[in-house]
Formats: sequence, C-alpha cells, structure tokens
Amino acid sequence: MDLPEAFKCPTAHEVIDDLRPLFGERLSTAQAVRDQHGHDESWHAGAAPDAVVFPLTTQEVSTVVTLCAKHKVPVIPFGAGTSLEGHVTAVHGGIAIDMSQMAQVIRVSPEDLDCTVEAGITRKALNAHLRDTGLFMPVDPGADASIGGMVSTRASGTNAVRYGTIRENVLGLTVVMADGSIVQTGGRARKSAAGYDLTHLLVGSEGTLGVVTEITLRLHGIPEDVGAATCSFESVDQAVATVIETIQSGIPVARIELMDAAMVRACNAYSKLTLPEQPMLFLEFHGTSASVQEQSQRVADLADANGGRGFQWSSRAEDRTRLWEARHNAYYSALALEPGKQGFTTDVCVPVSRLADVISDTRADVDSTDLMAPLVGHVGDGNFHLIMLVDPLKPDEVASAKALHERLVMRALDAGGTCTGEHGIGLGKRDFLLREHGDAVPAMRAVKRAFDPQGIMNPGKMLPDA
Amino acid sequence: MDLPEAFKCPTAHEVIDDLRPLFGERLSTAQAVRDQHGHDESWHAGAAPDAVVFPLTTQEVSTVVTLCAKHKVPVIPFGAGTSLEGHVTAVHGGIAIDMSQMAQVIRVSPEDLDCTVEAGITRKALNAHLRDTGLFMPVDPGADASIGGMVSTRASGTNAVRYGTIRENVLGLTVVMADGSIVQTGGRARKSAAGYDLTHLLVGSEGTLGVVTEITLRLHGIPEDVGAATCSFESVDQAVATVIETIQSGIPVARIELMDAAMVRACNAYSKLTLPEQPMLFLEFHGTSASVQEQSQRVADLADANGGRGFQWSSRAEDRTRLWEARHNAYYSALALEPGKQGFTTDVCVPVSRLADVISDTRADVDSTDLMAPLVGHVGDGNFHLIMLVDPLKPDEVASAKALHERLVMRALDAGGTCTGEHGIGLGKRDFLLREHGDAVPAMRAVKRAFDPQGIMNPGKMLPDA
Repeated sequence: MDLPEAFKCPTAHEVIDDLRPLFGERLSTAQAVRDQHGHDESWHAGAAPDAVVFPLTTQEVSTVVTLCAKHKVPVIPFGAGTSLEGHVTAVHGGIAIDMSQMAQVIRVSPEDLDCTVEAGITRKALNAHLRDTGLFMPVDPGADASIGGMVSTRASGTNAVRYGTIRENVLGLTVVMADGSIVQTGGRARKSAAGYDLTHLLVGSEGTLGVVTEITLRLHGIPEDVGAATCSFESVDQAVATVIETIQSGIPVARIELMDAAMVRACNAYSKLTLPEQPMLFLEFHGTSASVQEQSQRVADLADANGGRGFQWSSRAEDRTRLWEARHNAYYSALALEPGKQGFTTDVCVPVSRLADVISDTRADVDSTDLMAPLVGHVGDGNFHLIMLVDPLKPDEVASAKALHERLVMRALDAGGTCTGEHGIGLGKRDFLLREHGDAVPAMRAVKRAFDPQGIMNPGKMLPDA
Repeated sequence: MDLPEAFKCPTAHEVIDDLRPLFGERLSTAQAVRDQHGHDESWHAGAAPDAVVFPLTTQEVSTVVTLCAKHKVPVIPFGAGTSLEGHVTAVHGGIAIDMSQMAQVIRVSPEDLDCTVEAGITRKALNAHLRDTGLFMPVDPGADASIGGMVSTRASGTNAVRYGTIRENVLGLTVVMADGSIVQTGGRARKSAAGYDLTHLLVGSEGTLGVVTEITLRLHGIPEDVGAATCSFESVDQAVATVIETIQSGIPVARIELMDAAMVRACNAYSKLTLPEQPMLFLEFHGTSASVQEQSQRVADLADANGGRGFQWSSRAEDRTRLWEARHNAYYSALALEPGKQGFTTDVCVPVSRLADVISDTRADVDSTDLMAPLVGHVGDGNFHLIMLVDPLKPDEVASAKALHERLVMRALDAGGTCTGEHGIGLGKRDFLLREHGDAVPAMRAVKRAFDPQGIMNPGKMLPDA
C-alpha cells in the first residue's frame, strides 16, 4: 500500500479509508497512478491528487462524491487526460475519479440517430462500435478524448463547421451533483422547451458543477461519399475570402482547415513534401457522389476567383489520405522544427470577417520574437491555434511565449472573439475569462455557489480567484 | 390617468411613482393596456399587470428592474404576446416590460452570417430587413413572435429539422439581471469554450432569470432554390417510416410536416380541396437547383417504397404555395370545424422511432372522447400538436380536454419524450415539468434562487410551487 506521506487535502484520508473496502484495487494511492492523473497534455504544471478511484457505475460515483462532500474533499473528474488547459491538475489534492472503466455503449437507436454512452468511452471506441449501424459521432478534437471529457470542456475540432461542436450534439446527461445526488438532464427528444437547460449549463463546465457519468448523443449518417481537396494561396486574406464565400454560399463543407506558410514549411520538412510554402486550405466534403462533386467544383471556382492555385480534389480514399497528409501530421511537423522543445498550444476564435487581420497581426507578432510558432486553424469557425515551440527549462523563452500568448488573446478579444474556441478555461485562462466576461463572472460565480456551495468540484478551475 | 383601483402587487405604486417622470407616456396604467398585456394566445386565464412600460434602451430596462428589485415588485417581460402557455400572465401583478419599442437591427455582418438585434423586433421584420443581404433568420414558430420572446421560450417550428431551434441560432445575449445589472453573455465567435454557457441557460428561461434586451443571432444564406412536395399515405406508420429513412439518409430536408387524416379532412372543408383524407407529409427542400431536384427524387423513392401515393413536387413559387396551402391554413381549418369553439393547442415531442405509436394511441384516445382534435406535427423532430376544439364555457368539455391533454403528455413522457417541444412550461405545464424532470427540479430551483433571490422575475412561471 503506497499511501502518500502527507495528504495534500488534510481530510482526504477519511474518504480514502471509507472507500477502500468498497473499491478494493479500484482505489489507488500509488505515486505513479496519482502522478499520471495530476496532469493533462498541456504545458501547465501538474499536481497529483491524493488518490484515484475507478468507478464502474453512476451509483459508485455518487458514493465517492457523497463521501467527499461529507469530508469537504476535492473531486476531480478524469477522462482520457487529453485536456489542454490544466483541467485535471489537483491544485488542492483530493480524489480523482477516473472514468475509464465506465466505457459502455448503453443504447444505440439508429431510427432516432442517437445513443447513450457512459462518460469514459473514447470517441474512437464509440465510432468503432457504431460502424455497423452506418452512423457516426462527428465531433473530432484530434486526441482520442473521452466523451465525458469532451462534454466537460465543450470540445470541438475540424468538422464543427458542418456538424457543430459537442454542445450541439448532446441531448441529455446523467450527472452526479456536488451533494452526491444523481440528476438526469435533457432527454431523448430532439428538442425540448421544458425548464432550464441544465444540459448546456453542464456542457463546458469543466467538472466544476458535477460529474457527468452518462451522455445521450445525436449521431449522424456516415456520408455515402467523401471528397478531399487542397489549395494554396499567396496570402491568408485570399484563403479566408474563399472560406467566407464558401460558407455564405451555403456549401455544406465538412471540414475547412487553414495552415499558414510556416506550418506548410514544417510539414514539407517533416513529411518530405514539396507543397508551395504559402497559406493552404484543406477541405473535406460529405454527401452523395453528385453532391461531393458539386461542392468541390463550386469551392474550386471560388478559390480560383480569389487567386487560389493548384486546387486538387479526390474522392478516392488513398488520394484523400495523401492530400490531407500534411494536415494530419501538422502537430508532429511543428514539434520536429525544433527537436527537444515542447509545443505550447494556444486557442482563440474570432468572427471570420476579422480572421485574416488577426492572423496577419499575429504572424508579425511571432516574427518579432525569437519563437517558432506555426499556425493551424479550423477556419470555417474562425478558430485557430499557434503551436509555440518552447524549451520549458529556459525561463526567458517561457516568458516570451506567455507574453506572445497574452497578446494573441487580447487581439482576439479586441476583434470581438473569445479567449478559447474549444480548449476551455481550466487553470490557464482564468484571468482571460475575467477580461472577456467580466460583467458575467458574478453570475457564473452564483451558478457555482448554487451547485457546489462547498467548492469541492474541481476547485481552482475556470473561475478566477475572487 | 387610469390608475388601477387596487394594485395587485401592494408596492407597485412606489415603482410607478418613480417611473412616471422618467417614462411619461411610455408608462401606462390604462385598464385596456394592462388587460392586453395580461394574456397570451393560449387558453390560460389572463391576469393584468399593474402597469406597462415601453423602454427604448437596455439602460431603461435596467432602471425599471432596479426599482422593481428595490420594492420587490414582479417584472414580466412582454414580447409580441404570442406565447402559448400563459407566459405573460401577471399572476402577482407587477410591471410588464413591453419590448416592442426596442426593435432595431443593431448590426448585420454578411461576412460572418450574424447580426445583433434588439429583443422587440419580430422575426418577420428582421427577415424583411435582411432580404437585401441574401441572408435570413430561419426559425419560424408560425406566429410573428418577437426575437426576445422566441429566445425566452426556446421557440422552434417547421424548419428546426434543418436549421435548429432558436437555441442553436443564438450566439450571445445582453440581459438585465434581477438586480438591474447588465450582463453580456456569449459573443460573436462561432464557438467558445469560455466559462459557463449562460447564453443557453437564459434561452428558454421564460423571463424568470432576467430580461433579454439584445440578441446576437446566426444567420443563413437564402437558398438558391426551394422545392416543395406533398405525399399521402394509408397510415401514419408509413409516413413516419418515410421521415425516418429520409433523415437517416442524410437528406438535408428543410421542413417535413405531418397532418393526420382528421387534419386533412378539415383542410379540405376549409379550403375546398380534394386531398385524399389520409395522413399526409408536406416537405420543403433548400439548396442549389440540382440539389433540390436530387433531394426531391430521393424522398419520392423512399415514399414510394413505403406505400406513399401521389407524390408531387415543384420548385415553381406558385406551385409551392398551392402544394403547401393546406399546411399553411391548418390552424384556421381546424378552428372552422366547429365555429365558435376555441383551439386548445398542445405540444409534445418524442423520439421519432416512437412517433407512429404515440400518434396512433393519441388518435384512439381522441376518438374515445367527444372532442374534435386534428393533429399536425414537425415530424422530423418528433414534435406534434393536437388542436382540441373546446367551448370554454362548457366545464365538461374543458375538463375532457384537460384530461386528454394530460394523458397525451404522460404518453409522450412514457415514450422517452418531453412535455413540450417548443411552447415551454409557462403556467400550464409546471406540474408536468415535475413529472418529467423531478430529479432535476431542485437544481433548477437553485439556479432560480442564484439569479433571482427575491423571486421578482416573472413569478409563478415554469417552476412548480414548492
């Protein structure tokens, strides 16, 4: 038994003592397990919880939270650990609830295009399960995140432009509240006007209001045909103009991604490609064969009118893979620019009309620093990321990156945008939340107090210190 | 000056005295004005507020709410008065805030497909304003509701199946909170993961958490081409099977409406038509000419395989109007069945896979009563309405309608559905909210207390009596 020498939360041992006979080996205080649950994939410093439990049922989650409430011990829900703003860091110790053993598909209804799953299932496991039904869950944040984690961080990704973010795809939730009570929100009806929309209050609440244990999701039909396309542009302005006209024309593009020239250069180096080192759009089209062809042709025309060059498209699987190869490897290509450095990933989202300006100013800002920071974006939504390459052991470099990041967020806010399109607030953006929504933060605090009066649910996250 | 002889709210006169010098003729205590603001279009008994104010700015709304908070006087936001569950009834008197003079379009950004409007503008006025931009606001609840009212009741309608309800089309709000403070929620970014989703907590909150004064909305491109179609079926099962297969196939149908045989019979009588008196689907397709044609053909094939007869479609405007004439006049056709009676309109929503059963059981239930009650539904969402024809002066008939309504709602809940797809809870469905979401009502009450500790915001609505 590897008990931590000192509990970070002084009353954690009382909960652990009560849980041990109930959970047996599904409760761990081993240092390696605790460390693994104390950090996500971001650059934020981790902090281990005092123990980790692996529940099998909503009732078991309720038992854990009830005991934590009794002893005022922090509760930190843990999905796949792929969050990007320090969401799972156990700032004040406490009990991490690892949901990975609650990973069942409870129900699929092909007639209703919906399903209910346990929160610990990952999106890839869900889509593997669904394959035979002809349906899929479209939200794709890149990482193989758990569905519960995606709900909690309001995750999104490359095809939100067509299918919405996780917010638009959640119909209902089972949630363990901060007092251990179990609540169902929403339901299976496609739409409802019955009472406050607790479902969407909980989506994106980052574990600070309750623990999501089950999720009812909308599903979509796997498209009959898929097309992929790429096109290069001399300027980001031209690429963004093409995006705006594509969306204005109602072309139901499934993905539309932008890389800036720096990112294309990184991809050429990493994957030994010979792409023009210019801003580049990557597109995907879903529909019938006729519709995919029509969509591709219409976007090709718009790109051409905006100065796009070398438009290529294909609906053959191997060609699609080739066309998108650079985009798929973008993150690793960026890291390979400076081996040994870490990727600090940012996330802002602005009105699409302001995107070209914001990107152009950001590029000039990056160039004024010593940092390498290629850019990639879900440009149909106005959402983009800089991947800043930083040696975390060099304080000057870290400081330079943090200052660049802050200027980027302020630029996005000045453009009418948001400090995070999809990664969430977590530990990293609490001050930016105040700058973006200062007038609304008191109402957010009121919600927090109403749901979690003792402040035990993932404390230290999202809301700025009072 | 027509002061009410006795204020229903005993402290209302203090607010009225303070507001009179500020609002002049934009404050009314005339009985006719008060009566007009005390009821909506439903069968629920009205109750007049003590006074009505007509603010011009968010700041003026804040002034009214601040004074009401000081004197503990109810605040009832009033849009176009087209709600259907008694939402504006001044149960405890108080001040109605008529938003009709806040009806400006503040900003339209065609590049971003969004706009910001004052809450009092109606959807038709907004769409008239937008016409030259090539954009439109798709949510269409039938009535020419105000956008603020639509936000507050989570309105929906015929084309939610394609464009979503108002919930999916709101990006941000300006809200006057119960203490008079002014808060901005959401923003102009297409997506955001910044903090609790107060926007969607307020959408559908029926004026019980705050007064919505400005709304930022997503817009959509007016489709290049529009097609309309109709098809008759021997059974509701066949019609619903066609709907399910249409949606499973990913055909992006813009509207898909069902009338049962009783409703078709009523339409034939009212509009002197000769439609087969069988269940009937009404469809609308949006897209390019090629896409509209392809969609129509695919649905025609699905309808045919399910026993549909007489499929007709057209993209010519006059033919489209003719095809949809019966649907457009459905409500008046129903009323004309028994002149002098009132239409009690119900609203439930179930998973589409259960729709045929629920409708079939409901039809048998109606037939076991003496009531006429044709049925019409937004069948792509599983949402349908019975229009029960009732003489409100005959207590037996009213009691029979209420009992039928209760059985309908319970049948919908038993099928995994909701007690309201789009009309909301208001006065009329508070007990059903408890039956549908009994375990979540404590959390809803906690939200209410957090936002409105004095209980002055549209009191007596949505939440069941404690």
